[in-house]
Formats: sequence, structure tokens, C-alpha cells
Amino acid sequence: MPATAYTLTELVARFGGEVRGDALASVSQVASLAHAESHQIAFLANLKYRDQLAESRAGALIVGRDMAEASDKPRIVTEHPYTYFAKVSNLFNPPLRGEPGIHPAAVVHPHATIGDDVRIAANAVIERDAVIGAGSTIGAGSVIGAGSLIGCDALIYANVTVYHRCVIGDRVILHAGCVIGADGFGLAPDAGRWLKIPQIGRVVIGNDVEIGANTTIDRGALDDTVIHDGVKLDNQIQVAHNVHIGEHTAIAACTGIAGSAHIGAHCTIGGAAMIFGHIEIADRVNISTNTLITKSLPKSGTYTSALPFSEHSEWLKNAVQMRHLDSMAKRLRAMEKQLETLEKKNK
Amino acid sequence: MPATAYTLTELVARFGGEVRGDALASVSQVASLAHAESHQIAFLANLKYRDQLAESRAGALIVGRDMAEASDKPRIVTEHPYTYFAKVSNLFNPPLRGEPGIHPAAVVHPHATIGDDVRIAANAVIERDAVIGAGSTIGAGSVIGAGSLIGCDALIYANVTVYHRCVIGDRVILHAGCVIGADGFGLAPDAGRWLKIPQIGRVVIGNDVEIGANTTIDRGALDDTVIHDGVKLDNQIQVAHNVHIGEHTAIAACTGIAGSAHIGAHCTIGGAAMIFGHIEIADRVNISTNTLITKSLPKSGTYTSALPFSEHSEWLKNAVQMRHLDSMAKRLRAMEKQLETLEKKNK
Amino acid sequence: MPATAYTLTELVARFGGEVRGDALASVSQVASLAHAESHQIAFLANLKYRDQLAESRAGALIVGRDMAEASDKPRIVTEHPYTYFAKVSNLFNPPLRGEPGIHPAAVVHPHATIGDDVRIAANAVIERDAVIGAGSTIGAGSVIGAGSLIGCDALIYANVTVYHRCVIGDRVILHAGCVIGADGFGLAPDAGRWLKIPQIGRVVIGNDVEIGANTTIDRGALDDTVIHDGVKLDNQIQVAHNVHIGEHTAIAACTGIAGSAHIGAHCTIGGAAMIFGHIEIADRVNISTNTLITKSLPKSGTYTSALPFSEHSEWLKNAVQMRHLDSMAKRLRAMEKQLETLEKKNK
Repeated sequence: MPATAYTLTELVARFGGEVRGDALASVSQVASLAHAESHQIAFLANLKYRDQLAESRAGALIVGRDMAEASDKPRIVTEHPYTYFAKVSNLFNPPLRGEPGIHPAAVVHPHATIGDDVRIAANAVIERDAVIGAGSTIGAGSVIGAGSLIGCDALIYANVTVYHRCVIGDRVILHAGCVIGADGFGLAPDAGRWLKIPQIGRVVIGNDVEIGANTTIDRGALDDTVIHDGVKLDNQIQVAHNVHIGEHTAIAACTGIAGSAHIGAHCTIGGAAMIFGHIEIADRVNISTNTLITKSLPKSGTYTSALPFSEHSEWLKNAVQMRHLDSMAKRLRAMEKQLETLEKKNK
Repeated sequence: MPATAYTLTELVARFGGEVRGDALASVSQVASLAHAESHQIAFLANLKYRDQLAESRAGALIVGRDMAEASDKPRIVTEHPYTYFAKVSNLFNPPLRGEPGIHPAAVVHPHATIGDDVRIAANAVIERDAVIGAGSTIGAGSVIGAGSLIGCDALIYANVTVYHRCVIGDRVILHAGCVIGADGFGLAPDAGRWLKIPQIGRVVIGNDVEIGANTTIDRGALDDTVIHDGVKLDNQIQVAHNVHIGEHTAIAACTGIAGSAHIGAHCTIGGAAMIFGHIEIADRVNISTNTLITKSLPKSGTYTSALPFSEHSEWLKNAVQMRHLDSMAKRLRAMEKQLETLEKKNK
Repeated sequence: MPATAYTLTELVARFGGEVRGDALASVSQVASLAHAESHQIAFLANLKYRDQLAESRAGALIVGRDMAEASDKPRIVTEHPYTYFAKVSNLFNPPLRGEPGIHPAAVVHPHATIGDDVRIAANAVIERDAVIGAGSTIGAGSVIGAGSLIGCDALIYANVTVYHRCVIGDRVILHAGCVIGADGFGLAPDAGRWLKIPQIGRVVIGNDVEIGANTTIDRGALDDTVIHDGVKLDNQIQVAHNVHIGEHTAIAACTGIAGSAHIGAHCTIGGAAMIFGHIEIADRVNISTNTLITKSLPKSGTYTSALPFSEHSEWLKNAVQMRHLDSMAKRLRAMEKQLETLEKKNK
């Protein structure tokens, strides 16, 4: 399918910004500076890529105001070139929605409700009383559990599992292998054994949420697990039962969030962070990669606990001292006292 | 389906404890203190929720002996209110087992053996010589590999993969996306390349084990990987080849266990812990969240290695010193000697 | 099916080495020293297993030159017994390829291209314009996205998802639940919300790569994510968009690699390591378990950042000091100055 081409003038009419150079230059795809061809538009947000710029065969550029004259290629000058680039890329690359209609090898329960213009791929399973909103896509092998509601224009890739009675908003994207609504890890001790606590809450996911491949979000024990509008979760994140994640918070891959943690809005959480359960994290908190948060964070800020790496032989020498810090601190205090006494004597 | 209601008298007849207040008050579901309605029973195990108690609309309560008079609602007084609550919740919430029978879109090999009262959902695949015990449920899209045995009353959710020749006990619960019996990571170096070691052991899982969503348990290299009775594994746990996990050990999400580690019975392991391979961990060991265990733990106790977090600017200042601990320790020792000398002179 | 037996003479003719003892002893399977029977061959690479050797019922052994006389069983003496063992095991244990042909419950798009001797299991889905190379196996429930190319003799287990337009080499093994080609985590801030960056690169995987269960490899944002020949990835690894992993690098489970990191050839990376994005790691680098790599590693070596564990009560005392390292360092410097002054006075 030949892509639709747009002139820079047309792009500026849609997305704002200002053209410099040939305003009728036309492009039909985005690309990286290094690999762009003449029908493609690249972006330059950082002058450290100036060398790549010199060699780039891009047909046009999106540049920040401070780089407006870094090239004489046809270009769009804008405040936020990366965001602008995202808009242009979305224009050129609408989501792939698979084949139209319900594939004959899909299994749709007669008591399920399927909206207009829904695409359901081969071997997808829509269970009893599930509802699929208009314009949504269900990928091959995905399972939508009994009584679950999927909003409109959702995009669910292959081999996703949504358990029973979950609620998923409009325009949500669920990547392959993610699991929504499995039982939370609720156990009561009972004479040396573990007694399972039935997990009877739901997972409720707002609009415009994206959830990465193989991420797991457990259903609530009694009340619901709640993911608010605009949250973006990367791959292989674990969200335990009764967690709440506030609007437009973004969390990088491999992070784990323990039960009943409440995370604010507009937070960013680095990869492989771990968040204790039953704590509250304020809005606009940033948590660094590999950081363990063990208590509530009542105010915005950036929090870190990662250990710096070193060459193994260096590390061995320093690591052994980590087990002696308490003793080192005591010796420091003792010496300070000794020194004080000596200094008095030597006055 | 209207739920069955029970009076407090009936609950006490089943599960013990003592009724205070209206013994004929009846309830048909459990709920949290905060959201319970009049037909629901909540539990109170901690006086810090006394405020929620004051406002709760719960029809009845389960309370500890020390809180027997914290409310005048109809209530059951018991030694272990959380465990009692679990029992009541299991009464009200039996596992959902999906539609009865073998769905016409399931694929069952003619040489598989299927017990009585088995439910096999759409697009599940039961391969050659597999055996599914009586009363078990296989979710949509799950695959039971050739020659694998599933016990009785097992509950296997959607999109689970059990490889060939594995053994899974009675009443085991496998959550969506978990993978049982993939090859362990066995490689031999061969002239700059890696030669795969065929993984010919099995995974053997005991009775009453629960395994979380997207958890992976690799088959043994030569001998088996073994998960004993009553083990509970949360989501996204990685269990490498030839690991043994003892009875009634519970492991929280995102933990990794390297090859041939043997973990005792009745252990608890926090989230995102990492356990080295070829080590032995005693019974009743507790391992904290984010802790790396690098050698055997021959005695019961609690073990930790997590770095405390701080505000990023504070962290930067302290983290840089972690690379100088060895030098700090040497300087401490040097100063102690200097001080000693000085003190002698000043006697 | 009765296994084919080989005499030690026949094994040595294929794989080299030297027979001692009965050269006509024949074996048909490998096993561990501890559990081998008389028709099985075990290996001994370490004298610490001498006790097991004494009790072993193995019919034959593979031993290193230094252990050539550790037993009088029929044995093969070789430079690298573990590698030799791997070769013998591969002879006895060819990959299980499932039932021949295309299962009637597989869904193969009429515009897909299927090579000779391909096995496609029940409920696998091969989408439009996908190509499956000769001799490859696609497991039950796996989905090969539109336009993706799978090489020859590939072995794709159950419930794998390969997104559209990915390229996978010859003899690649993909374990269950792995997801190849999901969107990278690309977001641009836009007035308090996140704007998705379409991910239009591909995943390109070389020959002889093995990828573990539930591992995720994201497609590139603009250019491709590239996994070179012979790379071995364990389970639950996360590879972000535009990562490159060099030839014959092996990475243990639960590791995360952030976007655009370039990892060299012949590296080994321990479990649960985390690698920052946009960094370069040289060839033949070793990264320890639980280590966070925050900047480029331009030279070969071993790098570590794991915190040593201790009993919790000990840990508490030391951990609190980690927040005072900067102050401890300052106090050390202050005392050194005081001491210097005092020593001058006491000369």
C-alpha cells in the first residue's frame, strides 16, 4: 500500500510550527537521521547528533528553535521537536488493526456483546457476557473472560488474557502476553499451611492506558485494582492486588508494585524499581531505576537507592566493608572523642 | 445467581469461634470494612482501622479476641480473624470453573486421557498421551504437552503452557501465562559458541500448589525440578532447572531462583529476591524483598541485602562513597594507630 | 520408542576422545552421576563429586584428563568433559518436534508461505504474508504475525507471539510465552499526557539464537532491534527497542536491557542485571547477577554492584549508615587534619 505523502505546508497546517526551506517538499514516513531516505522526515533534538545530520539523506527535518539553522534542508521549526515528530509519526503510522470482521476460527460466546466494526482474530475467545466496544481489535489467541468489558477502539494484541469481570477503557492498548485480573497473592496462615483468600475484586483500567508485553495486573482481594486514565506501563511489570496508579503515570519495564500501594498521578518510575505494599506515593514523584521504595513518599521529588557498579575486584574490597559500616561508624565516634580529649591536652 | 446466605450461627457451626450480638444476622458475601454492605461480613484484625469501623455499613464482623467489644455489630470472635475470614470467603466464593464439558473448539488428542467432570475451554490443546484428572479445568488457549499428567480438581487458567512429560498434582492452580517445563538454561562452551545441553528432566509439582501469572518453571537438565506440596508462587517468578522448593514455602512476585538451588519448607521469600544456584536454604528461612542470597543459609532466620533509598541528591553524595569504603576502612585503621601513638605520648 | 544405543567406540569415532575400559560398553541415554542406570552415561568434571562417583550405577563415564583414572568404569577421557557430554546428549536427545504436518485446527492465512516439512500445531495462527522456513515447527497457540519471516529448522514452542514484520533466523528456538516485536516504550510528553511514538522498526534475530520462556524483545522505534547469531537468552528477560546484542552473548534470567543499549559479542550477563539505555558494552564483558550498569563499558572485564546480604538485625545496623557515608567521609577528612596538627605539636 503506497503511503500518503504530505508537504511540509500540510503538516504545519495540522500540527503548527513554521516551515523553513522548500515548503512543498513532501514526505510519507518518519525515520532516524542515520537511515532516512529522501521521502522521509527525521528529527533533530540534540546538537550532539550534528555529525549524523551532515550525512543524513532525510528529505526533511523537524528541529527545535535553537537548531533552526543547523541545516538547510526543508524543515519544520517547533518548540518541542520530539513531540511534533510523534504527531507526524502517528499520522503516517496508524495502528495496524488486523483483518476486518470476526474470524471464523474465533470463538465468541452467544451471550457476549460485540460492538460495530470490531475485529476478532483467529482463535480469540470471548467468553459469556463479555462486551467488546465498537472499533476494538482482539488479537489471535487472546481470551476475554466472562463478564469483562472492553471499551471502544481498544487494541488487544495476541495471546493476551483478561480474566472475568474486569473493566478496560477506551483506546486501551494491551500487548501480547499481558495478564489482567489474575488472583492477587492473598494467603492466610492456617496451621502450617496457606489458605487461599479468594480474590473477588476486579481490575479497572481507565482510558488511553497502554500495557506492555507480559505485564501482569492482579485483581483486587475485596475492592478493585485501579489503573487510571493515561497510565503507560512497559513490559514485564507486576502490579499486585489493590494497587492504584494515578493518571498519566509512566512506569518502565520489570518494575514490581506490591499490594495496596497507591501511586500518584504524573509519576515516572524507572525500570526494575520495587514499591512496597500499603504505601502512598505523591503526584509527580520520580523513582530511579533499580530503586526500592520501602515507605510512603508524601512529596514530589526524585528518589534513588541503586548501588554503583565497579570492576569486580574493586567491588569485592568495598562490598566487604558494607558489612562493617556500623562498626566503622562506632569507631569514628570513638576516635572523635579521643581526638577531643587529646586536643584539650594539647591546647 | 443469588448467593447463598448464612447466619452467624451457621458459620460458627462450620468454622468455630463465638457469636456476639445477633446470632441470626445473615450474610452472603465478604467485603472490606470500607465498602461492605448490610449483607456482607468484614474483618477487623488491627485497631488502626477503628475509624473505618465506625463508618462501616457491614452487616457483621469477624474480630480478634482483643477487639471483641470494638463494635456492637453482630460479630464472630476468634483467635485468628484473618484466617477465619479466609475460610468464610472460600465458602462464599468457590472457584469459577467455566462452562461444563469439553468445548467443541478445544483440541484433545485421541490418545489423551480425560477424567470425569473435566472442563476444557475453547482452543485449549491437550496433546498426545496427556492425562487430565477428574474435576480439573483447563482454560481457553492453554496447552498441555504430550505425556503430561494433571491431577484432580486442578484449575488451569487461560493461555498456560505445560510442556511435555511434566507432572502436576491435585488441586493445583496455574494462572494465565505461566510456563511449566521449558528448557533450563544449559549451555556448554564450544570453541566460542554455545552448545545446548538437552534438558531431559521434568517439572514435578505436588498437591495444593498455586503458581502465579507469567511465572516460569524450567524442566530439569537431567533430574527433575521439584515443587513440593502447598508451595505458593506469585506472578513473574523464575524457577530455573533442578531447583527444589520445600513444602508450604511462599514466594512473592518477581523473584528469581537459579539452577539447582534447594529451598527449604515453610520459607517466605520477598518480592524480587534473587537466589544463587547450587545453594541450600534451610527450613523456615525468611528472605527480604530485593535481597540477593549468594550462599547457603543453613539456619532459620531473616536475611536482607536491600539498599535504603533516599532523595536523589542525598543518594548521589552517599553513593560515591560506596566506591571508597575500602579506602575509608584503611584510613580508619591508620588513624587508630596514630591516635594510639599520640595518646601514649600524652599520658 | 526404544532409544538407539552406541558403544563408546562409536561415540569416540563421532566426537573424539579416548576410551579406557570396555570400549564395547553401550549406552543409550545420558544421566546424572547420582541417578544413572547401567545403560546411561554420566560425566564427571569435578572431583568434589567423587563420593557420588563411588556409588554411581552409571554404565559409562565421560571424564577429564585429570580424572582419567578416578574410576575403572568404561569411560571416555576428553579435554572438555562437559562439552563432550553436551554433544553426546544432543545425539541421544534430538529436539521433540511434535506431530508432522499442519494440524487441521491451525489457522494458516492463504497468503502465508509454508516451507517443506513444516509442523504447525493445533490453534497456531500464521498471519497474512508470513513465511515459515522448511523444517520449522510452530507450537500450539503460537501466533506468527503478518509479514514475519521464520527461518529454517526453527523450533517455536506453544503460545509464542511474534508480531508483524519481524525476521527470525535458522535453527532459532523460541520458548513458550515469549513475545517478539511488541512496541517499544516510546512516549513523548504532550501537555501533561503521553503521546505514543509509533514503533515502526522490526526485531531481527540471527541464526542459532535461543530465547527463553516469557522473554520479551521489543521492536525498534525507527530502526531495528537486533539479536545477532548464537545469542542465548534465558527466561523473563526484557530487551527494549533498538537494543543490539552481539554474537554468542549469553544472558541469564530476569535481566533488563533499556533502549538502544549496544551489547558486545561473547559477553555473559548474570541474572537480574539491569543495563541502562544508550550505552555501549564491549565484547567479552561479564556482568554479575543483580548488577546495574549505568554507563558504557569500553573494555572487557567483570563488573558488579550487588549488595552483600546479612542477617536482618545486622543489616539494619549497617544499612542506616549507608545514608551517612558522605558525612562519615567528611568526618574522616576532618579528623585526619586534626591528627596532622596534633602530630606536629607532638613531634
